Amino acid sequence: MNATRELAKFLVSSRAADLPSEVVHEAKRALLNWTGCAIGASHHETVDHAWAALRDFSGQPQAQLFGRKERTDALSAALINGVSSHVLDFDDTHARAVHVSAPVWPALLAYGEWKQVSGAALLHAFVLGVETEVRVGLSVFPEHYDNGYHITGTAGVFGAAAAVGTLLNLNEQQMVWALGIAATQSAGLREMFGSMCKSFHPGSAAHNGFMAARLAKQNFTSAEAGIEGKRGFAHVLSPRFDSNVITQGLGSSYELSRNMYKPFACGLVVHAAIDGCLQLKRQWHLSGSEIISIQLQVNPLVMELTAKINPQNGLEGKFSVFHACAAAMIHGAALEAQFSDAVVCDPVVVALRKKITAFPDAGIAKLEAKVIILLTDGRILQTHVAHALGSLQHPMSDADLAGKFSGLVDPVMPQSQAQSVIQMCWDFAQLNDSGQLSRATASV
Amino acid sequence: MNATRELAKFLVSSRAADLPSEVVHEAKRALLNWTGCAIGASHHETVDHAWAALRDFSGQPQAQLFGRKERTDALSAALINGVSSHVLDFDDTHARAVHVSAPVWPALLAYGEWKQVSGAALLHAFVLGVETEVRVGLSVFPEHYDNGYHITGTAGVFGAAAAVGTLLNLNEQQMVWALGIAATQSAGLREMFGSMCKSFHPGSAAHNGFMAARLAKQNFTSAEAGIEGKRGFAHVLSPRFDSNVITQGLGSSYELSRNMYKPFACGLVVHAAIDGCLQLKRQWHLSGSEIISIQLQVNPLVMELTAKINPQNGLEGKFSVFHACAAAMIHGAALEAQFSDAVVCDPVVVALRKKITAFPDAGIAKLEAKVIILLTDGRILQTHVAHALGSLQHPMSDADLAGKFSGLVDPVMPQSQAQSVIQMCWDFAQLNDSGQLSRATASV
Repeated sequence: MNATRELAKFLVSSRAADLPSEVVHEAKRALLNWTGCAIGASHHETVDHAWAALRDFSGQPQAQLFGRKERTDALSAALINGVSSHVLDFDDTHARAVHVSAPVWPALLAYGEWKQVSGAALLHAFVLGVETEVRVGLSVFPEHYDNGYHITGTAGVFGAAAAVGTLLNLNEQQMVWALGIAATQSAGLREMFGSMCKSFHPGSAAHNGFMAARLAKQNFTSAEAGIEGKRGFAHVLSPRFDSNVITQGLGSSYELSRNMYKPFACGLVVHAAIDGCLQLKRQWHLSGSEIISIQLQVNPLVMELTAKINPQNGLEGKFSVFHACAAAMIHGAALEAQFSDAVVCDPVVVALRKKITAFPDAGIAKLEAKVIILLTDGRILQTHVAHALGSLQHPMSDADLAGKFSGLVDPVMPQSQAQSVIQMCWDFAQLNDSGQLSRATASV
Repeated sequence: MNATRELAKFLVSSRAADLPSEVVHEAKRALLNWTGCAIGASHHETVDHAWAALRDFSGQPQAQLFGRKERTDALSAALINGVSSHVLDFDDTHARAVHVSAPVWPALLAYGEWKQVSGAALLHAFVLGVETEVRVGLSVFPEHYDNGYHITGTAGVFGAAAAVGTLLNLNEQQMVWALGIAATQSAGLREMFGSMCKSFHPGSAAHNGFMAARLAKQNFTSAEAGIEGKRGFAHVLSPRFDSNVITQGLGSSYELSRNMYKPFACGLVVHAAIDGCLQLKRQWHLSGSEIISIQLQVNPLVMELTAKINPQNGLEGKFSVFHACAAAMIHGAALEAQFSDAVVCDPVVVALRKKITAFPDAGIAKLEAKVIILLTDGRILQTHVAHALGSLQHPMSDADLAGKFSGLVDPVMPQSQAQSVIQMCWDFAQLNDSGQLSRATASV
């Protein structure tokens, strides 16, 4: 089974009219959520450092850096906006793996603005990019991830290549090459979690996938079987590969339908614990000072990814389930503000953090948690969160997403501008020039 | 043992005056050989396609595309010149693994020209870049390569990062980050061999290593243990890792001393077989038509890498030991001209190719071969090549390298210009502005 070619055949034969309307709507929800994350992080030092390092090499002002004043060449914009996407760790996630928007939207929006492509064409290309990165990712999941690859980077590059390749109207052979050029750039290590490089991964994926599509359009050749070949992506980067995951049922359902949006500004695996703490805080009007201890029962992945006992700054705080729950209990929220350096180092939060213990339980799902709180008056409060807010079973509404957007961009842009950007996302399918959205996010 | 930090410590404490003069001389030999390869391939369709795909995004004319008219931003120049390096498969190779110059010189020369860095500083940075990429590569060799990674790309990115990082005068912490940012971009699949992507690997390595150094200089952080961490480069991309290979004896000897230059325009593993055929041709004045059969006894890697029985074009011809030996026997040479589409499809060469058989023998070394020829008059000729020309035991002389350079650049530049570039390479340590060399290669 030639997975690369089968996938390429599907991609080049797909038409926008084939997409179910609910999938197109989901693409708009993803766009709104992604745009909020990118704007919200657009002045973060991670983005400033990346831009400072690369601006000397940038070209014509073809595309907007979201939420900033600068414009740059489309390829550089894909990289920098890709970094912005993921800095706050607040971007969307497929139900099983891959942050789907962060590698794909930056590449598409940069190319779309440069070439004045319609919003409708971008929505179609986005759906195909997501389909590609999720299927490629899941074909080697979870072993590939378990071995240490950051799948948002390693699979994301395929998504960006397929998406931009769709806008470039690649023929089947060129799409095979684009997927191969993506394969041979597939990279990103989980060792980088907790450093600025984690956000660099989707930025690189957007940049490199974009480049793969452009190279293929110029008939720059790659292998025929970049994904499934003996020394291709799947066999080299994973101990297991199921090519059926890539090829079966293409076009009959869309992976974007299983996309999730985070209500809290940290990794999804921590959401259920936070949700439980917030539920108990609201129900019992807790302030934090009456708490003797909080015991969390969580999926083992929570401990693997977010067990930082003593985080020292905001970024590390996102990888500490202890900080996340302590801050949520004291502030009644777990938004970006609760992951600032100041809150992570706040003695009140630190004191509560030290009273929190977490126990891995393989019988508990990734978005499930049990929370047990012991109070000074001897009472024991507990709750069981079966499906955290933001899960497929309990998704954020369109209004929730607009509210999240407003909160994210509030430090960066006036409310009137924010409202205009929100409306443009919902109306994206009607934009003749998708660049209108990008330019509407410019810092004024 | 913290290999990343130990390596960073060495890199930032090394001084140009520490280098033995023979190592500096070897750096000039590598420069001359690399420059010839890059100029010789500078108008190849692989380079044309890459430049066509990327020029729309390029920035200010900071650096020269070797052998061409165009100038572009330094980062793009590193990529394009990196592709040129390897198109002809004629670039240098460390005795055990990694084409050392292709990922490092393009990054250094582009940065050096942009910032008018001296030739002496570039020679020092090159030696450090090579030391880094070879040690990192060998720490996971051969398993990493056997699993399907193209080590020139995967290790080369570390070399480019260390080399440019040296010119940027990174401090120790920044060098740790630069190596980490390199680690998380480490990529390149052997599945791509035989396609244009093989040359894209050193281009990407040069580009991404350059970017890693620039990001680190802006305090863009990565993990502390990008190489040896649990989910760092070595453990994720290889089943085996020996950190001592990275850290032991740093500064007491230099890996560049084990660099090899190819006299023939194809993979090193084929050199001994070609050498044997040429020896017998010269000794017995063979024309090809009197040959009934040629039997080769070769290292098993020859069969693994270059067993294309029926190559259809020049590129595939480089991966066919059968074509290489047939063309050498008929033309008396195995230079770029013998790997043209026309020669690969020449009926006379094809007819002799079909008379050649090759047998893998694990007892034969990589640069060793036995050649047995049966003639129509019943004679059997044979030779045993213990060490092919170009090996450490039988290296090309400085004059050989200059001759190779002239042959390589002959289709691209006038002889007088070629002589001037050769002289500039030998005098490189005296250049106050290394960009003089780059500009001297410009197409007139």
